[in-house]
Amino acid sequence: MLSWVDGQPAELLSITDRGLAYGDGLFETIAVNAGQPSLLERHLARLAEGCTRLNIPVDLSSVRAQLLAFSQQLGAGVVKLMLTRGDGQRGYALPEPMRPRLILQAAVKPVYPSAHAEQGVRLFPCTTRLAEQPLLAGLKHLNRLEQVLARSEWQDTEHAEGLMQDVSGRVIEGVYSNLMLVSAGVLITADLSRCGVAGVMRAELLTQAAVLGVECQVRDISYAELLAADEVMLCNSLYGVWPVRALRAHDWPVGPLTRKLQAIARDLLDC
Amino acid sequence: MLSWVDGQPAELLSITDRGLAYGDGLFETIAVNAGQPSLLERHLARLAEGCTRLNIPVDLSSVRAQLLAFSQQLGAGVVKLMLTRGDGQRGYALPEPMRPRLILQAAVKPVYPSAHAEQGVRLFPCTTRLAEQPLLAGLKHLNRLEQVLARSEWQDTEHAEGLMQDVSGRVIEGVYSNLMLVSAGVLITADLSRCGVAGVMRAELLTQAAVLGVECQVRDISYAELLAADEVMLCNSLYGVWPVRALRAHDWPVGPLTRKLQAIARDLLDC
Repeated sequence: MLSWVDGQPAELLSITDRGLAYGDGLFETIAVNAGQPSLLERHLARLAEGCTRLNIPVDLSSVRAQLLAFSQQLGAGVVKLMLTRGDGQRGYALPEPMRPRLILQAAVKPVYPSAHAEQGVRLFPCTTRLAEQPLLAGLKHLNRLEQVLARSEWQDTEHAEGLMQDVSGRVIEGVYSNLMLVSAGVLITADLSRCGVAGVMRAELLTQAAVLGVECQVRDISYAELLAADEVMLCNSLYGVWPVRALRAHDWPVGPLTRKLQAIARDLLDC
Repeated sequence: MLSWVDGQPAELLSITDRGLAYGDGLFETIAVNAGQPSLLERHLARLAEGCTRLNIPVDLSSVRAQLLAFSQQLGAGVVKLMLTRGDGQRGYALPEPMRPRLILQAAVKPVYPSAHAEQGVRLFPCTTRLAEQPLLAGLKHLNRLEQVLARSEWQDTEHAEGLMQDVSGRVIEGVYSNLMLVSAGVLITADLSRCGVAGVMRAELLTQAAVLGVECQVRDISYAELLAADEVMLCNSLYGVWPVRALRAHDWPVGPLTRKLQAIARDLLDC
């Protein structure tokens, strides 16, 4: 598949890259249709916020230009964008000067069973809990061992996603999605100031729901509250919205707000 | 400098390596003298434990053989060993089959001011706190953004290391060292079952101190207890032992057990 490192076709990078050494970098997973990246501004905004918080000096206009040119060449599929702090010497101290490295990798769009979107999915109850680290919370950084451990907890195809709670038992997100629930007409999603990844689709759907006049709350969610919800859904920037139908012995119906947001996501992703 | 990827001289690796994508791997930093890796068995044992806990299938005899051959070729210096889960497809699920990748990088032995070992060092009080994640605690894995953030808190040369506490304020370790203190003749170091890296020099010094008849305790340490200690020291597998002389306005003397362990570490590292 197509891949670029710093704007040049390449499949290799230096073993001195700090992305490898320390997970010192960020990534974005971007759907591309007809040569155009979906949710482009939101992806770039999250990347910019990550760079600010991790102190990675980035030329965002160059990132944008490379991503657009790469997407144009790809046509349709998925772009995985990684931005690392670049090469480093031995030791944690920031390299001087820092020369961040941009890696773009193409992949085919994943094909999920149509039942996931139509009838909804079953969540696997992961025992891997998310640690609370406010300095990294919300970012899509390259330190993802918690997700690797959580995703390795199930191998069957019966579970399309896993539920991740934090170390205190709060309901946070899926392994590769954000979670939203609907209770008495209110759209609720977890506060991600202690842990979790603030997904671009989550952000977009919160905005769109507010436009529809739906009250939205971003706050802590208990496990009991999840079970008591009227509707539960997952979202991410590749598949849009999946209704959640089941977790352990619990069942939820597929509700009207889930279907409404699913249609919006479908339009955004052009899928 | 000399570097090998899977036993072959190489300076590059695939951008599909999961070490880059997710920090999905482990590392060891090993002092080499006269072609021999120091504390070899302890480094290999920690790596093996990490592989077990992260479910990375490793051929340890091959790792040992490559490390020994590499060290022989290097002669003297530092070997950074990275073991990743190898190449992956898009997504967190474990690749099938898994082909772990071994990366060996040589570096010159760092030269620290002799005053660090002789007179002791000043600790920088890092505001970056360590999150509590028992599933990863103790391992020297490749998710090291907390250390990157902590090390970026100071640039002056007055502070040789930084003090890291956990999110609850317990005293845990240095950014690239373990911390030990002496109180009423007892050697105390932090319990690393929630966070922190279980250093090989820490493990070796605990064993050696016990042989000397010193009582050793591995348990939680409060900030107040650190300040009240008779002696404080740092240790790692490159510099051995440094006495800690100061933190903020607080001063400690350099004590006899520190000097004794420092001499032991010097013998182990042949430096």
